[in-house]
Amino acid sequence: MSSYKSWVTVPKGSHFSLANIPFGIISTAADSRPRPAVAIGEHVLDLCVFAANGGFSALPDSTAYLHVFQQSTLNDFAALGRPVHRAVRVYLQDVFRAETPYPDVLRDNAGLREQVLLPLASVTNHMPLHVGDYADFFAGYYHALKAIQVYDVQLADNYTHMPVGYNGRSSAVVLSGTPIRRPLGQFRETKDSAPVFGATRQLDFEVELGCFIGRPSRFSEPIGVDDAEDHIFGVVLLNDWSARDIQAWEMPPLGPVNGKSFGTSISPWVVLADALAPFRTAAVANPTTVLPYLQQADANNVYDIKLHATLTTPSGNTQVVTSLSSKHTLWSFPQMIAHQSSNGCPMRSGDIMASGTISGPTRFEHGTFLEINDNGALSSDIAGKEERSYLLDGDTLELSGVCGDDEEALVGFGTCVGTILPALVK
Amino acid sequence: MSSYKSWVTVPKGSHFSLANIPFGIISTAADSRPRPAVAIGEHVLDLCVFAANGGFSALPDSTAYLHVFQQSTLNDFAALGRPVHRAVRVYLQDVFRAETPYPDVLRDNAGLREQVLLPLASVTNHMPLHVGDYADFFAGYYHALKAIQVYDVQLADNYTHMPVGYNGRSSAVVLSGTPIRRPLGQFRETKDSAPVFGATRQLDFEVELGCFIGRPSRFSEPIGVDDAEDHIFGVVLLNDWSARDIQAWEMPPLGPVNGKSFGTSISPWVVLADALAPFRTAAVANPTTVLPYLQQADANNVYDIKLHATLTTPSGNTQVVTSLSSKHTLWSFPQMIAHQSSNGCPMRSGDIMASGTISGPTRFEHGTFLEINDNGALSSDIAGKEERSYLLDGDTLELSGVCGDDEEALVGFGTCVGTILPALVK
Repeated sequence: MSSYKSWVTVPKGSHFSLANIPFGIISTAADSRPRPAVAIGEHVLDLCVFAANGGFSALPDSTAYLHVFQQSTLNDFAALGRPVHRAVRVYLQDVFRAETPYPDVLRDNAGLREQVLLPLASVTNHMPLHVGDYADFFAGYYHALKAIQVYDVQLADNYTHMPVGYNGRSSAVVLSGTPIRRPLGQFRETKDSAPVFGATRQLDFEVELGCFIGRPSRFSEPIGVDDAEDHIFGVVLLNDWSARDIQAWEMPPLGPVNGKSFGTSISPWVVLADALAPFRTAAVANPTTVLPYLQQADANNVYDIKLHATLTTPSGNTQVVTSLSSKHTLWSFPQMIAHQSSNGCPMRSGDIMASGTISGPTRFEHGTFLEINDNGALSSDIAGKEERSYLLDGDTLELSGVCGDDEEALVGFGTCVGTILPALVK
Repeated sequence: MSSYKSWVTVPKGSHFSLANIPFGIISTAADSRPRPAVAIGEHVLDLCVFAANGGFSALPDSTAYLHVFQQSTLNDFAALGRPVHRAVRVYLQDVFRAETPYPDVLRDNAGLREQVLLPLASVTNHMPLHVGDYADFFAGYYHALKAIQVYDVQLADNYTHMPVGYNGRSSAVVLSGTPIRRPLGQFRETKDSAPVFGATRQLDFEVELGCFIGRPSRFSEPIGVDDAEDHIFGVVLLNDWSARDIQAWEMPPLGPVNGKSFGTSISPWVVLADALAPFRTAAVANPTTVLPYLQQADANNVYDIKLHATLTTPSGNTQVVTSLSSKHTLWSFPQMIAHQSSNGCPMRSGDIMASGTISGPTRFEHGTFLEINDNGALSSDIAGKEERSYLLDGDTLELSGVCGDDEEALVGFGTCVGTILPALVK
């Protein structure tokens, strides 16, 4: 697709084509300051140094906010709202375009290029935003249907009426690559036995998307469902690591806490809402007519992102354990935002709204081992050499996600990875 | 009690005696910077200006950390840990003592006194710490027993085995005095009717304590129950405003969200753990032998704080609607910290662990209108002139809390106040 041709080499199949331009926070061996950057192909553009050297001089009105690129997180940039994100992204696309209208800014400016266009492999990623609150929903419709079947319970009456969710623990949200220690916790070995304290025996992953809030809202001011899109900064892959035995025992009546809060991994590059717009599609049709505050004018309110989870064992055996589309949710991010803010709860820049596990309608599209293996009754074949019901110590679980079919214009997320460390001795 | 005699006038009955020395964040008309202070009697000591003018010069090793008093929150001070909090508090008590060993520092230093000793009534309070995560527990034993009776449900099997709780929304934690808008939300008018969206009809208060984390813990590193005390900075009054109809409908299966997250008020002055130490007592005896990770060596693990909730109507009628001791919990803050961190969930300076509603064993000691009025079946008499089942628009609910019997050496919290604003038109 010629409109996404860049003078920067973008290998075919790269997640970071000119159609994407995701934002993250990087540091380098030469400059340890965490600072904003965008990724393109196998390079990143250091926005901090780029901004400080006049890189945005051709972008109208940008001087008013260029200080955001001197920050160590993207929160201040996110807070500026969609029109600014759009202007900056479109400008950077123009700067990188093969036939750039601004050749002197970077393409033909070897001195600046040398300073700001860095090999992706040479940078260290940091948390892209400081996370204020992290809410996790239960929007994956087929996940909900399968989960209640596994646990032999009924779907709650509220499920089709509102985006049901819980508030998670923002202190435990970590960047992809952070090792995840198998948690200790309290659980029952059988349904009628006394609880014990020990390392979880049912360590699971969850395939999710996380939506970062951009423009904040104020205390006591709800966000309307059709205004909510303006409050979205972008999206990351999110793995809500879960200890099923701990979670099952603790949940009644206040919901999950320790079964979740030992680690929640996110991918480092935030794909802006604008970059995902071409991949919007309809959510799962809701059998219930929802209340007006949740009725969204745009029927294409979720994204069709191809998601994969890949397990690599300590022996080096690798297996894609599930593949699915992110579209299989009953609720959209705008609906989650409208619902959670309907009572006046403030949304801050950097808050995360997560989808909850997404699963597709077939047994090949489950987003957790809980579903894939019927809570331990079955096991997944790993490259014909090993089996897994749940995650074992040393296992590495990688999520990946990508939109589009044009290998030269993919909008991808890269990966979200974590390796399981053995439990601490209790 | 002569040992708590100060050269600063401390009126009899003041919550802020020399035995207390609570920490907060203030600003003034003359200096709008939010900055740390302590309260004593009807004055505050501006720690920012005091530190910058050599006020701590007689405190050994303090230069290493005096920068924390230049911050706009107490997070950095809290992070220093109990030995530093103790040294600073004891030093300030000595500075304020009638027979101070450091007369030149302040008592006899009119110039500095003028700058740093300000009338309490002249300062504006701000949030004492930036709240990272806010977890709310269900530790009030008699509250739990009454709540299940009101809703005609069983106590969950896990209740006596672990401090059951949920993560709340830190974005909605606000300072005492912030008006609370009656939330809109989704609820059912009868148990079998379709949900509607509107203003809550069951707006309630909850008498709680909030414990601020001081010294942080690291990702994947549990805090032992007997080490947890070292991670406590101090305690505030906390009113977990609740919309019972919204909460009841949303709870299954993931717990409360919108029924809580429209506002959670805290008192402005943090009473340090050391100040509360003389008022430690035994918690409710647990009928269950808890697992070793929750067995606390010190049996006196909760505080005996006299708590009151006072309602004032728009007509000006005032009534103490409940009085109780904070000791009636099944779980202590160290147990909550040990439990929530047992899976490696990090605790950050400024995170809040809240008790959940505390109620005493009799019907005069319930900590919510839900319990006092059997979820709307009864109503509370307000000064013989009005009645309330739940809160009405314009009502002001004030929590207060105080320890001790010596009117000249009280350790109190001041108040935690909120006035109900009418709902937005939906």
